[in-house]
Amino acid sequence: MEQRDRDLIAQIEAIVGPKGLLLGRDVTARPHLSWGRGQCPAKAIVRPGSTSELSQVMALCHRWGQSVVPWGGMSGLVNGAQCEAGDLALSLERMNRIEQLESDAGVMTVQAGAVLQQVQQAAEEAGWQFAVDLGARGSAQIGGMVATNAGGNSVVRYGMMREQVLGLEVVLADGTVLSSLNEMLKNNAGYDLKQMFIGSEGTLGIVTRAVLRLRPRCSSVQTALVALSRFEDVVTLLRRLGGELDGKLTAFEVMWQSHYHCLVAELAKHPAFLPTEYPFYVLVEASGSDPKRDEAHFMTLLESLLSSGTILDAVIAHASEQAAQLWALRDDAESLIKHLGPVAVFDISLPIRTMEAYITQLEQRLAEDYPASRLITFGHLGDGNLHLGIGPVEDKTGVESLVYRSLSEVNGSISAEHGIGLEKKPYLHRSRSEVEIQLMKKLKALLDPKGVLNPGKIF
Amino acid sequence: MEQRDRDLIAQIEAIVGPKGLLLGRDVTARPHLSWGRGQCPAKAIVRPGSTSELSQVMALCHRWGQSVVPWGGMSGLVNGAQCEAGDLALSLERMNRIEQLESDAGVMTVQAGAVLQQVQQAAEEAGWQFAVDLGARGSAQIGGMVATNAGGNSVVRYGMMREQVLGLEVVLADGTVLSSLNEMLKNNAGYDLKQMFIGSEGTLGIVTRAVLRLRPRCSSVQTALVALSRFEDVVTLLRRLGGELDGKLTAFEVMWQSHYHCLVAELAKHPAFLPTEYPFYVLVEASGSDPKRDEAHFMTLLESLLSSGTILDAVIAHASEQAAQLWALRDDAESLIKHLGPVAVFDISLPIRTMEAYITQLEQRLAEDYPASRLITFGHLGDGNLHLGIGPVEDKTGVESLVYRSLSEVNGSISAEHGIGLEKKPYLHRSRSEVEIQLMKKLKALLDPKGVLNPGKIF
Repeated sequence: MEQRDRDLIAQIEAIVGPKGLLLGRDVTARPHLSWGRGQCPAKAIVRPGSTSELSQVMALCHRWGQSVVPWGGMSGLVNGAQCEAGDLALSLERMNRIEQLESDAGVMTVQAGAVLQQVQQAAEEAGWQFAVDLGARGSAQIGGMVATNAGGNSVVRYGMMREQVLGLEVVLADGTVLSSLNEMLKNNAGYDLKQMFIGSEGTLGIVTRAVLRLRPRCSSVQTALVALSRFEDVVTLLRRLGGELDGKLTAFEVMWQSHYHCLVAELAKHPAFLPTEYPFYVLVEASGSDPKRDEAHFMTLLESLLSSGTILDAVIAHASEQAAQLWALRDDAESLIKHLGPVAVFDISLPIRTMEAYITQLEQRLAEDYPASRLITFGHLGDGNLHLGIGPVEDKTGVESLVYRSLSEVNGSISAEHGIGLEKKPYLHRSRSEVEIQLMKKLKALLDPKGVLNPGKIF
Repeated sequence: MEQRDRDLIAQIEAIVGPKGLLLGRDVTARPHLSWGRGQCPAKAIVRPGSTSELSQVMALCHRWGQSVVPWGGMSGLVNGAQCEAGDLALSLERMNRIEQLESDAGVMTVQAGAVLQQVQQAAEEAGWQFAVDLGARGSAQIGGMVATNAGGNSVVRYGMMREQVLGLEVVLADGTVLSSLNEMLKNNAGYDLKQMFIGSEGTLGIVTRAVLRLRPRCSSVQTALVALSRFEDVVTLLRRLGGELDGKLTAFEVMWQSHYHCLVAELAKHPAFLPTEYPFYVLVEASGSDPKRDEAHFMTLLESLLSSGTILDAVIAHASEQAAQLWALRDDAESLIKHLGPVAVFDISLPIRTMEAYITQLEQRLAEDYPASRLITFGHLGDGNLHLGIGPVEDKTGVESLVYRSLSEVNGSISAEHGIGLEKKPYLHRSRSEVEIQLMKKLKALLDPKGVLNPGKIF
């Protein structure tokens, strides 16, 4: 380490104390890439204990022109927290307290390092729920989830992270503390500045505190797997469940036959809840406050959909274990990834009316250019969000170009919920115009003129 | 009119044509202040017929340093569209088409001048609803509603305007067209630029098109007026209805006794649906898809709330006429304003836990400083939003200071849904810190360096 770096580190240690700083092997022991890969090459990992400490650290880094890569729980999938040798990594893992929970109003104030599962549990103990849920709940931190505008399985009912954030405290690139810890659903006093930071992937500021909106806890959950023969029936099903379950539709997860057949028939990793010959499967979840009433409502609706021919077959979970099995099938990306061999995975969104033609065309183009590869399709259809797995793939760049070219044609997005990070940066222009990208860059230059915050990410 | 102005007007007319320009009496005939007051003193009203025309007009105004005041339907209440003699007013009233309605997905693309009622009707004809509703539905334009992040009566269920906007097209101060006409619920491809413009009151850009999220149309509505003795019961009621009506609670409108007693007993303007001696009244609305099931659910819940003593009395609307009468009572601000004499009205938000003490303290402070005035309180309590009427008031500034001083103490907002405009500009610092206001000004300078867009508004 050079003298200049030793000086900087010493000054940082004077601010955050020895517990606030990791060096040497404690740094390389940490993965910094997606899927838990990589040995972090940063100079140090800074772990401030308070907003005030972080503010001082950022003021120092800003003066020195020192790049800082903010970390959340490291469950992102686009290398948004990747470090170079010259960087400092910044972890808020010591700032993980739930500071306040207003149980009358359903409002919770947390430090950014609080882990999702901890937040979910605290909400539930107070008779509420925190409505964003995702597989990485045991590691994902609220600050990272705000910075990436996390999505997950219940967006169709509750929205993404953006819709759960009432207020934020953010440390800006120069150490300024921007405190907008609003608690109200309505506040039109000037620009809603927090919106800028949500989904900005740590490039505009560092989230240190969030005021979260909680939702009423549901005491009843209905889960079913249904089979359909045509995509237009999937659309009809979504519309009828959206309308006739009133506010209760919580998840609408589609699996193309490619997905279901692979996991159930080829790999035999999951029980054959339904025969494998149907073109489409949808995992439906509804939740409400009265088990008896809700179940009757759900059953009546499914019967009506069966008798109208919209759905051809259905299996209903009669206990939470069965529901868990259905979700395990839906969530078993790991088996698919292993099975496909070298795999390219995608997280796209597109208008629902364009989905069927898009997938059909993509299959054709893949068959022509990459005849050895297959396409597996599933995702949060209610949000316009599909996940694709394509493999085996040697030429990952070629497949990416193919997927994103077709996507541009239907005005889709190269990232529905994962963000851009480094991984999707080469394709940003596929979903955003030059005018949009220029304005993003202007915002970046305004808020971080020296480019110290998460440099090189997004654009 | 000076030569320079005549030259500018001629150039604008060459872009927008004679239909696109109003001059002289056609300008002064138009009110430009809140409540339909004032004779517009602007040089001209420009009415472009397309985004391209507006883009050219803005490029010209930017070169000339000509200030432009964007107008919506002129139903705002904070003088956000007020003009000075040197300004050009800009109306999008000719750009009022509904361009696309995806009836499978519930997505509608409209030009900014489309009127709310027209959008609501088109949505309903397609089996959907547009979920923001407010009294000025016959005049409020979508562009203005986006620019002011309009709220209204159903925010507790569907959110404000921000939550209904999937995509925007915006003309920037220099005429650049920023097209972000996203249709998907999820799109994390870089910064979500549209968020900056929502609620910016025409100071950062001019909304020309919006992609709107529609919601399933409800075929059943339950409406009740209930009476309560304690504020804590109002909070309990909100929490129980929020939890036990599942997603169906659509409105939760509170009236302090001051409001109900004034309209029903003193003015006798409305039927005495319930006796006037209760401390609190709440207008509750729920809506769903099955009249019979929804009514049974609603009645069971109300009975339980009556038997637990949370509510003391209730009247249920058994037909839409009765529901309309209850809403007419809630919405009769006009009678209150007339009755109070010279009146100061407020649109504030504050944490629900602080409301009772805030109102009690405000009443005490008013009694001390303005013994001739009375306070009338009502509003969208489910959103933390109260409307206050205080009158008779000669010293409006003094009363404003009193209200906003108390509000700062509880971290409340001087504007829940109306915005800042010119009217609340002197008090912005009561709800926003100096750091926040400085960042707002930096954003303004970035997007409108010459200050041509709605100059002087907000800060």
